[in-house]
Amino acid sequence: MGDQIGEAVSGTLYYVPFKEFERVRALPVPPVEKTGLFAALCRINTLYMIARAGSGHIGSSFSSMDIMSWLQLNELRIAPEGDEVSPQDIFFSSKGHDAPGLYNTFIGLGRLDFDLIHTLRKLGGLPGHPDIATPNIVTNTGSLGMGVSKAKGMIFANRLRKRSGNVFVLTGDGELQEGQFWESLVSAANNKLHELTVIIDHNKLQSDTLVAKVSDLGDLEAKLAAFGWHVSRCDGNDLAALAQTLAATKNVTDKPKVIIADTIKGKGVSFMEHTSIDSDVEFYKFHSGAPSDEAYVKAAQELIDTANAKLNTAGAAQLELETIIRPAAVLPENPQRLIQAYSNALIEQARRNPNIVALDADLILDTGLIPFQKEFPDRFVECGIAEQDMVSQAGGMALQGLLPVVHSFACFLSSRPNEQIYNNATELEKIIYVGSLAGVVPGGPGHSHQAVRDISALGGIPGLTLMEPSCEAEVAMLLDWAVNQSAGSSYLRLVSLPWVIPFELPSDYKPQLGKGVTLTEGKDAVLITYGPVLLSAAVQAAQSLREEKGLSVKVINLPWLNNIDAEWLTREVGTCMDIFSLDNHYLVGGQGDRIAEIIAKEALSEKKLFRVGIGEIPACGTNPEILKVHGLDSASISAVIRAKLNK
Amino acid sequence: MGDQIGEAVSGTLYYVPFKEFERVRALPVPPVEKTGLFAALCRINTLYMIARAGSGHIGSSFSSMDIMSWLQLNELRIAPEGDEVSPQDIFFSSKGHDAPGLYNTFIGLGRLDFDLIHTLRKLGGLPGHPDIATPNIVTNTGSLGMGVSKAKGMIFANRLRKRSGNVFVLTGDGELQEGQFWESLVSAANNKLHELTVIIDHNKLQSDTLVAKVSDLGDLEAKLAAFGWHVSRCDGNDLAALAQTLAATKNVTDKPKVIIADTIKGKGVSFMEHTSIDSDVEFYKFHSGAPSDEAYVKAAQELIDTANAKLNTAGAAQLELETIIRPAAVLPENPQRLIQAYSNALIEQARRNPNIVALDADLILDTGLIPFQKEFPDRFVECGIAEQDMVSQAGGMALQGLLPVVHSFACFLSSRPNEQIYNNATELEKIIYVGSLAGVVPGGPGHSHQAVRDISALGGIPGLTLMEPSCEAEVAMLLDWAVNQSAGSSYLRLVSLPWVIPFELPSDYKPQLGKGVTLTEGKDAVLITYGPVLLSAAVQAAQSLREEKGLSVKVINLPWLNNIDAEWLTREVGTCMDIFSLDNHYLVGGQGDRIAEIIAKEALSEKKLFRVGIGEIPACGTNPEILKVHGLDSASISAVIRAKLNK
Repeated sequence: MGDQIGEAVSGTLYYVPFKEFERVRALPVPPVEKTGLFAALCRINTLYMIARAGSGHIGSSFSSMDIMSWLQLNELRIAPEGDEVSPQDIFFSSKGHDAPGLYNTFIGLGRLDFDLIHTLRKLGGLPGHPDIATPNIVTNTGSLGMGVSKAKGMIFANRLRKRSGNVFVLTGDGELQEGQFWESLVSAANNKLHELTVIIDHNKLQSDTLVAKVSDLGDLEAKLAAFGWHVSRCDGNDLAALAQTLAATKNVTDKPKVIIADTIKGKGVSFMEHTSIDSDVEFYKFHSGAPSDEAYVKAAQELIDTANAKLNTAGAAQLELETIIRPAAVLPENPQRLIQAYSNALIEQARRNPNIVALDADLILDTGLIPFQKEFPDRFVECGIAEQDMVSQAGGMALQGLLPVVHSFACFLSSRPNEQIYNNATELEKIIYVGSLAGVVPGGPGHSHQAVRDISALGGIPGLTLMEPSCEAEVAMLLDWAVNQSAGSSYLRLVSLPWVIPFELPSDYKPQLGKGVTLTEGKDAVLITYGPVLLSAAVQAAQSLREEKGLSVKVINLPWLNNIDAEWLTREVGTCMDIFSLDNHYLVGGQGDRIAEIIAKEALSEKKLFRVGIGEIPACGTNPEILKVHGLDSASISAVIRAKLNK
Repeated sequence: MGDQIGEAVSGTLYYVPFKEFERVRALPVPPVEKTGLFAALCRINTLYMIARAGSGHIGSSFSSMDIMSWLQLNELRIAPEGDEVSPQDIFFSSKGHDAPGLYNTFIGLGRLDFDLIHTLRKLGGLPGHPDIATPNIVTNTGSLGMGVSKAKGMIFANRLRKRSGNVFVLTGDGELQEGQFWESLVSAANNKLHELTVIIDHNKLQSDTLVAKVSDLGDLEAKLAAFGWHVSRCDGNDLAALAQTLAATKNVTDKPKVIIADTIKGKGVSFMEHTSIDSDVEFYKFHSGAPSDEAYVKAAQELIDTANAKLNTAGAAQLELETIIRPAAVLPENPQRLIQAYSNALIEQARRNPNIVALDADLILDTGLIPFQKEFPDRFVECGIAEQDMVSQAGGMALQGLLPVVHSFACFLSSRPNEQIYNNATELEKIIYVGSLAGVVPGGPGHSHQAVRDISALGGIPGLTLMEPSCEAEVAMLLDWAVNQSAGSSYLRLVSLPWVIPFELPSDYKPQLGKGVTLTEGKDAVLITYGPVLLSAAVQAAQSLREEKGLSVKVINLPWLNNIDAEWLTREVGTCMDIFSLDNHYLVGGQGDRIAEIIAKEALSEKKLFRVGIGEIPACGTNPEILKVHGLDSASISAVIRAKLNK
């Protein structure tokens, strides 16, 4: 049962049980005071949720917590189930990575099962980014800049069906760098969508550092006003100011409205507040990822103290909290770190080739570019969250003789600037694209971030060679190939997770276009795959099949994703009748399509190709859960091979 | 030899020979007067070029002709070949469809071989949209909104290499609806790119009608100024005003500059000037496409008269012109018109289903939506050239229970909003996407418009069924399937060209997911393809193989592009050993990939699959030229089959 906490202690996690939310919501205090208390409780649970999950976005969950709480408690009109006449207001977060905060407002209101608090980023639990499979979530977000467009579509539907209701969209400020945001403002003004209120959680920081350092927004008020919107501004962590500003917008009935809510990233925990860091020398540490035990204890204590102080002011009793022992984080031993290897390899290449320049879209840390920026500040371009602009800039650079290397997460890089990459390709200039966070794991962020469609989305571009390295050594080799051997453009697909691999490349291995390398010999079946995650599973499967069933399975590392040498493949599969292709990707458009093409063309003595890969939108969960549920762990792969070989 | 033209006559085309340009450029008159004359001559030749080609963009070639002429004659510093030190200015058109005008400025200056004037949109000639394979063209355009980004990349390269030079980018005004334009403005201001001047050819019309009616730009000056750019404005068809405005921007050294050049679409021919039409009742007729003979004669006469009047003022002799007989346009007899059929079918569906709404991105005419808009004005959304916004709006509508049908050209729809389509797909709501202008023909507009990557770019999206109808009847059937039978989302791929087809669907044909229909029976080989263009070629090839070689070839229409029934396929190919797959698409990612997957998996008695499709960036040219050069005409297909069967 609940306890009043004296002092938070190491190794323990604290959360506010539902009855405490009920107590707070029943307190006879004014809305501003009650909402402040509600938000204080939600912050404790958000910190808990992220610490327990091992990852999640604290900074923007906290900056927007007061806004989200105010809207939920005081603003939104929710029509009863089945009532199609009463006004129905809609609220969602366009940035989406504030999902832990959002979930906790629902949980605190009893609109979401309380036990879900323990399930962030777990299979069947609450996904890392919002998904409509979760109650109260109205649209899938996680990829930035789509929110206003979606809201406009909802309002169009409401107007067509004569349904009244307002739509509130919470956006980030870094998110405003996306072109779609500005694209979406125009018709909202032209159509006088007064039902629409956008609240910008203007916490001044995007993932790595200050928005102003990445891509300054300039005079935001002037921009928004010039687009024909009604603009107001307030302190977004001051509930009274927010309430007043929202109330004032009610009088505006001929324009969509935008409120610039000045907030503090990490608001509520002094050392997590962005105003406490010196952003000239430090990166902000609490954008994503779980806090350390030490940081957790300190933060939890401060949040609990704040909540208790507020309760005290309200003349109410102190909080009773629940606790659990913090789950120990399992760290891999001696994992391969491909991003680190890439980071080093790029610097090596750049030292030798003065034409190499690097472009980034607000993921300098995740894409391994910090050392490059330090060593070559003049050859580094931080484009902000503006992938289309980044890719076309790279095109312009290539036309002027530079060798641009373009970085983002694979999920975004392959799709947001898809047409821009194609346009560049038609110019036949050499550009290297590097998509990290490739594949179905990490499974925690959810499908907006799980890049399992990039091979498909880019594979058909003539002259663009797609490849995925299996280990640190191969990262350097493939980058070297792209820079020094390839005449055309390349896409380097990188798994970002540190991964322990049970194989080694042969010491004399050198990548050759279209050809793979055998990691384990075998004659009963041939397994072809790529990358650390699936090659590890394949090698482990081969080992267990050998040990348990006496089967010998050949495992081939084939890093070339859209360009396979037919002669090599024919030779490698030899007399083996059963070939298995594993894709860390959707089946459609994956490497297996290229293998199938060769087998079908050559009619290789009735060989059969079995394909393993992803068929449906990937689930969100821990990495082992996700590999298993999609049949990509070694046990599932063994089972498929056994079944096909009738063993 | 040249003649002074008394009166332009029907059936004849007139152009200004190079020596007349030399004469004008040598006249001792001030720059404004000389440039006006130069532009007047270029307009004559632009009209000629488009009339001869049978298609091209008159309206915006004419609106921007004065700007392009002024820049080329008076502004741009071109360093001699090999000189890497002197300033090198760069100019390009971001909108790109003003290419005929641009080419003629190069031709008039002797910077492009004069004989190319006869080769617009022909194989080996001048492409419909700019491509760097043409001398003086510095970047590939035709897909909107990329220009400023590319220019920034060029300036970055210049600064890095300490090369001086200014970059001038001409944009459209409709083009400003693209989010990338606004996305690209930000870092130009933050990095104080004073080398960059954007000139907006503000002719007030986009493809179909007034920009203000499609998606009003609002207070453009305020918007651009709010983005931190230096803004000036002038009459873009008044050379003196333009010269003065450009001169004034020279003093601005701390900001990028934008000039809003107010122009008249179709400037120079009174009845083509947009100001002459009543845009409340009429569509503008001269955006793209060739003028009729009558319109040509009238326009040519006016342009020639104008040029002669200017020569007269300059005290120079009248123009000597060259003439040719206008090539007769070959019109297909009783062609299938899929867009027309789609237009009717959509209305039929919409009458029965009140949830159907249609969204368009400034292609209401080309996508067949004018009747829909007339009948269902409340259920039609004109989104402007803002595909990302359109697709996410559709997502919002679907979430609120509507059935959105989303329209654009296949090339744009599959790639610009690629991530937005995927995001919608993760919500599992039903949306229908309709991509017209699909496939490699028409070959005239060039690779920016040739949609041969859409199957690949969209095929891997779970739950999205891709299909292409072969004739008018099948359009209606497949739309009906998408609306009334499919639980999931669909992508309908439509060939826009009227096409004469030598086959008929069986009278009892009903589309069944994953299954095709045999059009001609045969046993020596099986040809599987889709759509009117390749099915026609396939049926003709089968006929000639039968007549000339006694071969019987089975031709199957398989309208399902990413979802094939393996049992059906196995049954259909029967005992036939040689299967041919034809893709009006790149080989990678086409329907052939799905056929190969099944053949490889089933190891169908050593059957061999031969694939025909596009391997390289498609060429620009007439339709017969393009089909032939890519091996997709019936003769090439026959040849492949004969070669593979050793006949």
